[in-house]
Amino acid sequence: MNNFTFYSPTYFAFGKGEENHTGEYVKRFGGSKVLLHYGGGSVVRSGLLGRVKESLVNAGIEYLELGGVMPNPRSGLVYTGIERCKSNGIDFVLAVGGGSVIDSAKAIAAGARYDGDFWDFYEGKQVESALKVGTVLTIAAAGSEGSGDSVITKEEGMLKRGTGSDVLRPMFSILNPELTTTLPAYQTACGAVDIMAHVFERYFTNTPEVEVTDRFCEAVLLTMVKEVPRVIQSPDNYEVRANIMWAGMVAHNNLVGVGREQDWSSHVIEHELSALYDCAHGAGLAVVFPAWMTYVMKHDCNRFAQLAVRVWGCSMNFADPEATAKEGIERFKSFLTAIGMPINFKELGAMEEDIPKLAAKIGLKAGETFGSFVPLTTQDVENILKLAL
Amino acid sequence: MNNFTFYSPTYFAFGKGEENHTGEYVKRFGGSKVLLHYGGGSVVRSGLLGRVKESLVNAGIEYLELGGVMPNPRSGLVYTGIERCKSNGIDFVLAVGGGSVIDSAKAIAAGARYDGDFWDFYEGKQVESALKVGTVLTIAAAGSEGSGDSVITKEEGMLKRGTGSDVLRPMFSILNPELTTTLPAYQTACGAVDIMAHVFERYFTNTPEVEVTDRFCEAVLLTMVKEVPRVIQSPDNYEVRANIMWAGMVAHNNLVGVGREQDWSSHVIEHELSALYDCAHGAGLAVVFPAWMTYVMKHDCNRFAQLAVRVWGCSMNFADPEATAKEGIERFKSFLTAIGMPINFKELGAMEEDIPKLAAKIGLKAGETFGSFVPLTTQDVENILKLAL
Repeated sequence: MNNFTFYSPTYFAFGKGEENHTGEYVKRFGGSKVLLHYGGGSVVRSGLLGRVKESLVNAGIEYLELGGVMPNPRSGLVYTGIERCKSNGIDFVLAVGGGSVIDSAKAIAAGARYDGDFWDFYEGKQVESALKVGTVLTIAAAGSEGSGDSVITKEEGMLKRGTGSDVLRPMFSILNPELTTTLPAYQTACGAVDIMAHVFERYFTNTPEVEVTDRFCEAVLLTMVKEVPRVIQSPDNYEVRANIMWAGMVAHNNLVGVGREQDWSSHVIEHELSALYDCAHGAGLAVVFPAWMTYVMKHDCNRFAQLAVRVWGCSMNFADPEATAKEGIERFKSFLTAIGMPINFKELGAMEEDIPKLAAKIGLKAGETFGSFVPLTTQDVENILKLAL
Repeated sequence: MNNFTFYSPTYFAFGKGEENHTGEYVKRFGGSKVLLHYGGGSVVRSGLLGRVKESLVNAGIEYLELGGVMPNPRSGLVYTGIERCKSNGIDFVLAVGGGSVIDSAKAIAAGARYDGDFWDFYEGKQVESALKVGTVLTIAAAGSEGSGDSVITKEEGMLKRGTGSDVLRPMFSILNPELTTTLPAYQTACGAVDIMAHVFERYFTNTPEVEVTDRFCEAVLLTMVKEVPRVIQSPDNYEVRANIMWAGMVAHNNLVGVGREQDWSSHVIEHELSALYDCAHGAGLAVVFPAWMTYVMKHDCNRFAQLAVRVWGCSMNFADPEATAKEGIERFKSFLTAIGMPINFKELGAMEEDIPKLAAKIGLKAGETFGSFVPLTTQDVENILKLAL
């Protein structure tokens, strides 16, 4: 096991009606003047934003609003938010929404404490200080409610890049599964794929013998394998939504990744798909991940066989572990199809002729690679995307 | 799923050599004058205490020492520690040792900020404020390094009681598996049973449909089922020690318990055994838990069958789930015997004639019960202990 640190100081308040305590939590964690950040009209129409505002008022918390966050959140609104924080003495950014809103809130929180261009943080500079962030989560997907990560798209060149820092971990996150029951099946499934992908990126590692982390990965995946088909059938089942919502947090606060190398190349590849086509991140991952798995499988067939047996319920073919490994990937693809996800370019609406452009946009120089389970070149990315046609 | 809050703000530094950074962590988390708390001579002989002191000196941290913590830590030393903190302006209690040392440190930290008798907290008063606590862990067992819990024994009447509060969660915990490789097999096995018991107390619940928490429980248990027999065979295997050490933390920071009722009656019963015989807590649990499981099994045979299949690798007997449930308990007992643990009164050195006294010391009034999976009366406790003869 590699040395590691693990720090997940976010206070989680989980369950029915918890959003009505938002104001108390802001106060408890030291906020006095809030930027209330959100996306489109759904949080307004559902009455959620109204309940959150009422809770802030009841706690004596002053707030300014900034809505309009789009999926694959953009730098333009981040600049607006930073300016608004700086000129109004904001000390707390409250995100009400899904991963896009939370990621945008984190970017604003980092930029508001920085004299330079916030984009520096998305090009490699470490975030050292940020305003406090809190969240009221409405979609089980990104895990941003429990992580220190943020992904933003810069309009100029549609560059989608990420940053991460412990100072960006939310002070509190409110997770009420009721808020997710009206989410349409397609977005629900996209979120589920994102959750599973956060585990896969950590499961495929070259660090041996970290059984405890393997088992935590499998715990999240087994939960998803049971609950995702159920949620598609019964979208308003509270218990199912609750299991998925909590699994989504644990999948990305790094508990399932400690003590070993992680990969993350499928996320890097997918970011180019959603930047170019503005598709849902989860849908892009459903296309990229099976192709990546097929491409790298032979690097460690036994690890893929372990996943196939422990998560997908395959019988181990002891004479031919590679056959078991392949069967696991096939079951994953069937699972994706069954929950309505695309598994190839055509179903996603991506185009074969864009493959060289998609691979090039990752920005590798000649001879450079990325990812750790199997380091990939630009040519490898093209090969993987061709497997996804 | 029940509403819940989850808050585990401890910073974990895990791996080889991390204890050499103790001083930096004390400084980072706001300590300036430390009570250095430890047990017997082993941390002195091993050189660990010397390295920790050197690290404190290098970071410019002043410290006073208080050693002498015994297993099943006593209130007498806690009073001494509180007095020493109050009269010397101590702001941080650093525990170097196992669960007993950490529990004693938490009691001192709570008492040092309280004008009354610290024992009030162990008789039901909520801890609202405490000095900061940090830990350098030397035994994988109690999980106190990641929890807000503390158990102390009052010499007068040998009363063993617990308290719990988020303010008692350590600011940081340093977990270096190397420090555990010299631990004798018996203590290693006792620690392992304690870890598994922390999961069982949460696994047996009447709250339905919390698959995600079931799976996390099983993840810890599966890790232990694989690694504990290996550590008995190869005590200096770093990877095995590392898996067990991290599993021990996760088993008790409550991640494996969220969203549902917990039981804890086996811990309550065991506390009377270790208070009376001064036996190791883990050894007492190895005697109590199989007896408790046998006594309450019929309340929910399917849950016991699930454990048998998912953790103990039993085949499900669909015609007779109770048979599968029983087989799981038998495998647990075989596992305990194989790792050198007692599974009955005789092997523990307990006496049948003490059973009424042990049951009575829990202190239930007529008609009162404790535990939640199956509420138990004093008579139930006697019946369970008789199953353990």
